[in-house]
Parts: sequence; structure tokens; C-alpha cells
Amino acid sequence: MARSLGELAAEFGCELIGEPSATVSRVATLADAGDGHLSFCADSAYLELLRNTRATAVILRSTDVEQCPVAALITDNPYLVYARIAVALHPEPAPVVGVHETAAVSASATISSSAEISRNAVICDDALIGDDVVVGPGAVVGPRCKLGKGTRILANATLVQDVTVGERCLIHPGAIVGSDGFGNVQGENGWEKLPQIGGVRIGDDVEIGANTTIDRGALADTVIGKGVRIDNLVQIAHNVQIGDHTAIAAQVGIAGSTVVGKRCKFAGQAGIVGHINICDDVIVAGKTVISKHVTEPGFYAGSIPGEPHKDWKRKVARFRRLGDLTDRVTALEQRDKSTKTASSDDE
Amino acid sequence: MARSLGELAAEFGCELIGEPSATVSRVATLADAGDGHLSFCADSAYLELLRNTRATAVILRSTDVEQCPVAALITDNPYLVYARIAVALHPEPAPVVGVHETAAVSASATISSSAEISRNAVICDDALIGDDVVVGPGAVVGPRCKLGKGTRILANATLVQDVTVGERCLIHPGAIVGSDGFGNVQGENGWEKLPQIGGVRIGDDVEIGANTTIDRGALADTVIGKGVRIDNLVQIAHNVQIGDHTAIAAQVGIAGSTVVGKRCKFAGQAGIVGHINICDDVIVAGKTVISKHVTEPGFYAGSIPGEPHKDWKRKVARFRRLGDLTDRVTALEQRDKSTKTASSDDE
Amino acid sequence: MARSLGELAAEFGCELIGEPSATVSRVATLADAGDGHLSFCADSAYLELLRNTRATAVILRSTDVEQCPVAALITDNPYLVYARIAVALHPEPAPVVGVHETAAVSASATISSSAEISRNAVICDDALIGDDVVVGPGAVVGPRCKLGKGTRILANATLVQDVTVGERCLIHPGAIVGSDGFGNVQGENGWEKLPQIGGVRIGDDVEIGANTTIDRGALADTVIGKGVRIDNLVQIAHNVQIGDHTAIAAQVGIAGSTVVGKRCKFAGQAGIVGHINICDDVIVAGKTVISKHVTEPGFYAGSIPGEPHKDWKRKVARFRRLGDLTDRVTALEQRDKSTKTASSDDE
Repeated sequence: MARSLGELAAEFGCELIGEPSATVSRVATLADAGDGHLSFCADSAYLELLRNTRATAVILRSTDVEQCPVAALITDNPYLVYARIAVALHPEPAPVVGVHETAAVSASATISSSAEISRNAVICDDALIGDDVVVGPGAVVGPRCKLGKGTRILANATLVQDVTVGERCLIHPGAIVGSDGFGNVQGENGWEKLPQIGGVRIGDDVEIGANTTIDRGALADTVIGKGVRIDNLVQIAHNVQIGDHTAIAAQVGIAGSTVVGKRCKFAGQAGIVGHINICDDVIVAGKTVISKHVTEPGFYAGSIPGEPHKDWKRKVARFRRLGDLTDRVTALEQRDKSTKTASSDDE
Repeated sequence: MARSLGELAAEFGCELIGEPSATVSRVATLADAGDGHLSFCADSAYLELLRNTRATAVILRSTDVEQCPVAALITDNPYLVYARIAVALHPEPAPVVGVHETAAVSASATISSSAEISRNAVICDDALIGDDVVVGPGAVVGPRCKLGKGTRILANATLVQDVTVGERCLIHPGAIVGSDGFGNVQGENGWEKLPQIGGVRIGDDVEIGANTTIDRGALADTVIGKGVRIDNLVQIAHNVQIGDHTAIAAQVGIAGSTVVGKRCKFAGQAGIVGHINICDDVIVAGKTVISKHVTEPGFYAGSIPGEPHKDWKRKVARFRRLGDLTDRVTALEQRDKSTKTASSDDE
Repeated sequence: MARSLGELAAEFGCELIGEPSATVSRVATLADAGDGHLSFCADSAYLELLRNTRATAVILRSTDVEQCPVAALITDNPYLVYARIAVALHPEPAPVVGVHETAAVSASATISSSAEISRNAVICDDALIGDDVVVGPGAVVGPRCKLGKGTRILANATLVQDVTVGERCLIHPGAIVGSDGFGNVQGENGWEKLPQIGGVRIGDDVEIGANTTIDRGALADTVIGKGVRIDNLVQIAHNVQIGDHTAIAAQVGIAGSTVVGKRCKFAGQAGIVGHINICDDVIVAGKTVISKHVTEPGFYAGSIPGEPHKDWKRKVARFRRLGDLTDRVTALEQRDKSTKTASSDDE
């Protein structure tokens, strides 16, 4: 979608240095951009690329405008303005309104006339599909699920049952929301199933990654706050609550009944145990295990980066012998003390 | 499904304190329960909630009955009885018997007349679908798969081929059972594929979580024992054998040909290397790596919980300098010894 | 598919000791093999099994032929020859050519007349399906995806959009290729989405595991080199580049924009941070975190195997007190030095 620089400057609150009638139709990196492309420079590390760019225009800070060989859209926050203009230039395709003839829809489901139900999608009993919703090819919307205005459920994703999704959410392919929690009780002859009867409630503007799994609550609901961002292959167990605007990177696991605050950020492969509370504004490093309540905002870590195997092997051996080393230090201290005592005796 | 307390007491072997004709129709937590709800108290930590509950009845131990302001179902194992009554009050919906008109079924498949084949499900050649089986929307049952009585394969799950599933199993949405193992042989021009021709055999009463993957065997079958419980996003590689009643939490990975005993419990994100044996009754802590045979039952661990980054950074730095510290201790010991020697010489 | 030993010896360059007209129809392990089965012995650890095998023939090195009680196919690389003969004996089923009546195909898609589009598969707008391609049941090929000759996309897998796949690739069930990268920009009122407009380019002879996720690029493409092997539940983030013939085991995560060299091998659950370069021929141990550029080929490690909990707990406690231990050593050194100084003063 081509837009003129003049329009973009006005709409996104930038100062324009350049020809207002010039148009851009897509975004690109400083290095790759060519004619009709818009790029951005948010970091002085890229000034060399900026000086050589062949973009039609670049979004940047006023301090970098001298280095820019082409038209400039000046703003204090180039990255954010870039994201917004990228949305304008690359809008999601409009829903192909209607129920595709290959989709299978229960007679008891309610579907807005502005929604798209794609090829081979399935809408089960008593589901409620709001305005402008898209249900992608092969996606399944289970019994009693409710999808708010503008939400999109992409290909082969599944809302199992009793999942309420807010407005403008984006659920990526293969994600499973509302599956049973892992509830097992020891019986005389092995595990017995603890029925999982809660649902999942998802706020507005939430994004859930590909093949991520979010379990329904055992009794009460699992809750995902508004504006939460969840990456691919994440596990959210039953009765977890995630605060607004928290971001969770790929392959993180959060065990049952844990309550996560607002604006937290969990890096990839972190593991959060069950039944704990994590306060607002907690950042967790990649692969870190959080095993206790966290009551102070801040940055938490717990992984040790890898290194060449022969060095690592030696470190692990020393770690294993830390008990010996401690004993040796204690022995030295005792000899030192007895020496001193002896020496004091001498005096 | 409403049931009277009298009936429930008789059926589940509880002593009833209260009006036998009172009915309950669902389970709820002590805090949330209201009229017509049944709750439970299995832990004295919840006695305060018990004293204030508005449930119609509570399942509890005789020792707690004095604290209970409402009807009580008394048993020695409140949690287990609660699970069983919850199953009775919240039964799985009965199969909608028959093949939905949007399902695609091979002419060579055999389908029990009491089974449900849901919307857009696919049943491939030579599959065998037993009595009371449910194949959920979009699920795929591949060639030569066999599903025992009462087993349910939920939405968008896939049994790839040659998967034999016992009775009363529950395979959650998005799970993949019977995919090729990761078999690669180094050729002159890169990897060559080692054909995977085994199947997967799954015992009775097994539960497999959402988006979990279980590979077929390379030659012999991958085997999941009866009563095994597997959570979401777990990886079980080719030729693994899992003993009866073992429970595996989310995001655990078990590499190829490993044999796991009975009644083991693996916590989330643990990693078990290939080609090892783990005996019965082994418990593995979250994120722990098991890299060798385990021949003794018991609790194994291998992860270090995270902490504030500035503290952790210091600990990692000290870990890295453990070699230096060891050298310093050795130097002290040598000086200590030479001092002693010198001092002995003196004497 | 039965083949005579004479044919196999000629086709795969082996010396045959035995009757050329004897036939084998499947591969099996030395222990399980019976009449009509072909086995292999690539490791002298299995000589006892070799001596007792009831296979019709065994592939082995000339040095082991004396131990073989049955026909022998002699080669320098028994494992590779075994893999190749296994492919010959167990070929993938030929495509069931044509578009199944339950598949849903866009009018703008182009489909080779030799391709198989299975039950309930979906082919979206402007997709291009090459010769001999198989699109499995419930699989979705999104807009503008291109599949090269002989590639197979298995059940319920999804190519989201703008994914170009080479020839002879194998994409396993539930895999998601081309989902949005995790691109979020901090706005005044929470996260804003950074549109992801790149695609994914996959070379020839690539295998992608079940429920693995590979994100599309933010601007440029995510790139998977030729001959790459990716196991199940792996996360490949946006703009990652994987060099030819690299193998990635289950549950590995590779964060955004990282460039991985050729012929690398990453073991299960490893985590590679974003924006780094890893050179060719790097091997990473299971669960290891790689947090910096790797410029030297070799074997890297960073995880500590688990052990009995009571031992591990003690080790972790000592690790936590490493600062104290260091202080104690420093104190001993200072006393030692002052003793020495004092003692020097004495002299």
C-alpha cells in the first residue's frame, strides 16, 4: 500500500525533510532498501549503513539527520514510529467475509456476518464469533468459546473449549488454548484424573505464538492479561495468571497456579515453578529457573553460558570437588589457628 | 449433573454429616464455592477457608469436621475422593455417535458403530476405531492405527501411522504420535535418512498432552506403558520405553532408546539423554539433565535456581575462577607444609 | 519390497558371501531379525548378537565376516549401506496422485498433476505445488508458498505464508513454518506489533520435525540451508540462518537473527541466543546455552548432569558460599603473608 511521505509525516507526527509527494510502499532494512522503500535508523551503530542507504526515506532522530542521504522522517522514537508505519504499509489482509463452504459450523454457534471462517475450519457448539474475526484454515473453535472483535485464530490452531478471547488478539498456527491441565491424583492402582473444568480468559490485544499450549483451569480459569505477548512453544499450565503487558519468549514453561505480574519479560527456555507469585516488572534471563516467590522487581538470572568442552569439563570437576576444597581450607584455617595459638603461647 | 449427598456418600464410601437429600451439581474451591457446590479440604493449611466456605458440602478428614460449617463427606483421602466425585459430577460428554459428514474416512478403515468421528477429522487406510472412541475435529488417524475402546483423540491431534492405542486413553489437541525418529547417517554429501519403520504402542489409561511428540521406533516400537501421564510439549524419541504409571511434566525431553521404569516422575523441562536405563521410582527435578544410567530409586536434581542478576553474575565469575582458587589453596598448603617442615627442622 | 542379495550387493557396492538369489524384504535388528530379514553390524560391541542372529543376511565389515553365521554383505561403512538398503526395502508410499475431494484448494493455486493433495488438506491462494509433492491430511499450505519436486508436508503441518521449500524435503506433522516472529515494540500503552513481512527459504533435502516452529523473517527471510536436519519441538526464530547440513536435535531454541554455520550439531534442549554468529562445525552439548559468537569449530558444553538430590543440594549450597570460601582463602593468604613478613622481620 503506497503512501506519500507528507501523509505519513502528518499521520505519525514526524518532521519531514524531503519531498512530501514522494511515496513508499514497503519497509526494508537500511542495507536492503531501494526505490519506494522506507527504512529506519534507531541506533548510532547503523550510521554507516544510513550514509549508504538507497531507501526513498528513513525514519530517524534529529541528531542523525545530517548523515542521511535521502528523505528523512524525524521523530524521537524511530523504532516505534517505524513499527506503526510498517503496520500502515503492510496491513493484515481484510477478512474474506463469510463461512467457506468447506468449513464445518455447528448449528448452535453464532457467527458475525463480518467474520471469516476459512477453509476446513471447525466451529463447535455454542461458540460465539465476533465482528471481523478470522478463523484460519483448519483451525478449531471448540464448544462455548467466544472471540472478540477483530481477533484472528490462524491455521490449525485449536481453542479446545470454554476459552474467552478479547478483541484484536492474534493466535498463531498450531497453538492450543484450553487443553486439560495436568491433574493427576494417586489412586491405589495408579494415577486417577482430576477433572479440569475451568476455562481460559484472554484479554484484549494478546498475541499467542505458534504451537504454544495454554491449559484450562482446574476449577477457576487460567487468565492471560491484556496486551500480553507469548512466543512459540511456550507452556502455560492450569490456573496460571499472567499480568497485563508481560512478554514471554519461546519455550518458556510456567507451572500450575503461578501468578505473574504486569510488564514482566521472560527470556527463552526459562522455567517458572508452580504455586508462586512473581511481582510486576520482573525480567528473567534465558533458561533460568525461578523456584520461589519474587517480590522485588528487577533482573533475575540463573544459567551459566557454555564454553569449549575441555574447559567446561574441568570446571564441572572442580564444582564437584568443592566439598574437598572447602575441607582443605578449613584444615588450613585450623592449622593456622593452632600455629597462631602455639605462637601466642610462645610469646 | 446433580447428585444427592446421600448417593455420593454411599457410592464413594464416605460418612455423611448432613442432609442426605441435599444435592450438589459441581465442584468448586472452598473460597469460590456457593449453593449447590461441593468442595474439599485435604490440607490443614486451608482450615480458615473451610471455616468460611459457602459450599453445600465439603469432602474432608474426620479430624477437620469440627471446623466445617456445612455438610461434610468424611474420608481418609479427601483429594482422591474429590477427584472421583468430580468425575461423576463432570462426566466427559458422551460421543456424538457416527461419522460427521465433513469427516474423511478411508474405505479400508473399520469404525465401530458407537464411535464419534468429528467434523473434518480424517481416518486413513486400514485404521481400526474401537467402541466409544472419539476422534475430535481436525484430528488425523493415520494408516494402520488402532484405537481401543473409549479412547479419545482430541482436536487437530495426529496419529501418524502404525500407532496402537489402548483403552480409555486421552490424547490432547495437537499431539503427534508416530512421527519419524531423528535418524540420520553421515554420507559423503551430507546426511542420509535412516528409514524409521517401527510403530508406537500405547497401553491402557494413558494421557498424552497437547502438542507433545512421540516418535515411532526406528525398527522395533516405541512403547508407552499403561497408566502413563504425559503433559504438554514433551518429546519422546524413537524406541524409548516408558514404564507403567510414570508421569512426565511439560517440556521434558527423552532421547532415543532410553528405557524409563515404572512410577517415575519427571518435572518440567528435564532432559534425559539417549540409550540409558532409569530404574523404577525415580523422581527427577525440573530442568535436570540425566546423563547416565540410574539404578537406585530416589530423587535426582541438577538445576540451580535463579537469583538477582548482580548476585548471580558474581557467583558465575567465582565458578569460573574455581581453578585459580584451587591453585591458591594448593599454594597455601605447600607453604603451610614447608613452614611446618621448617618448623619441625627447628625443633 | 523383496530384493535378492545379489541385486543388493551389485547396487550398493558390497561383496556378497552367500547365495545371490536369497531374498530379503525388510530390515531388523540382529536380535529380532528372522527369515527374510536383513540386519547390520557396524560396531564390535554387537559381535555376540551377530554370532546368534537369525537374519537372512547381515551387512558388516570384512573384519567381522568370520563371526557371521548367515549370508554377509561386506562393505567399509555398514551403517550407511544399511540406511541406503533400508530406503530401498522400505520406500515411502508413492503419492496417491490428485486432489482428494475433501481437500480445499484455492482457484489461484497451481498444482502439479503428479502431486497428492490429501484428505482435508488446504492449499491457499497463489501456492505452487511441484511434481510428486505430497500434502498430507489436514495440512495447510498458505498463500504464496512454493513446494519443490518430491517434497512432502505431512498431516496437520502448516506453511503459513511466503515459504519456499526446496526439493525432496520432509516436513513432519504439526510443524509450523512461516509464523510471525516475536517482534514487539514498547509503546506508551504497552507492546505494539512490529509487522513481520519476510518469508522462509528452505533448501533441498531438508527435514523438519514434528511440532517444530520456524518463524518468517521480520524484513528479510529466515533461511534453512540444504540438507539441514531439524528434530521435533525446535524453535527457530525470525531471520535465523542455518548453514547446510547442520543437525538440530529436539527442543533446541535459536533466537532471532543468529547465523549458524554448516555441519553444526546441536544436542537436545540447547539454547542459542539471538544476534550471534556460530561458525561451521560447531557441536553443542545438550541443554547448553550459547551466549556469544563462536568463532572456533569444536565441541561446546555448559550443563551439569544431575545426581541424587541430597548430594546436589550440598553442591549448590557450596556454590552459593563460594564468595565466603574465596574470602577465607584471601584471609589465609594475608595471614600467611604477614606471618612470612613477620618471620622475615625476625630473620
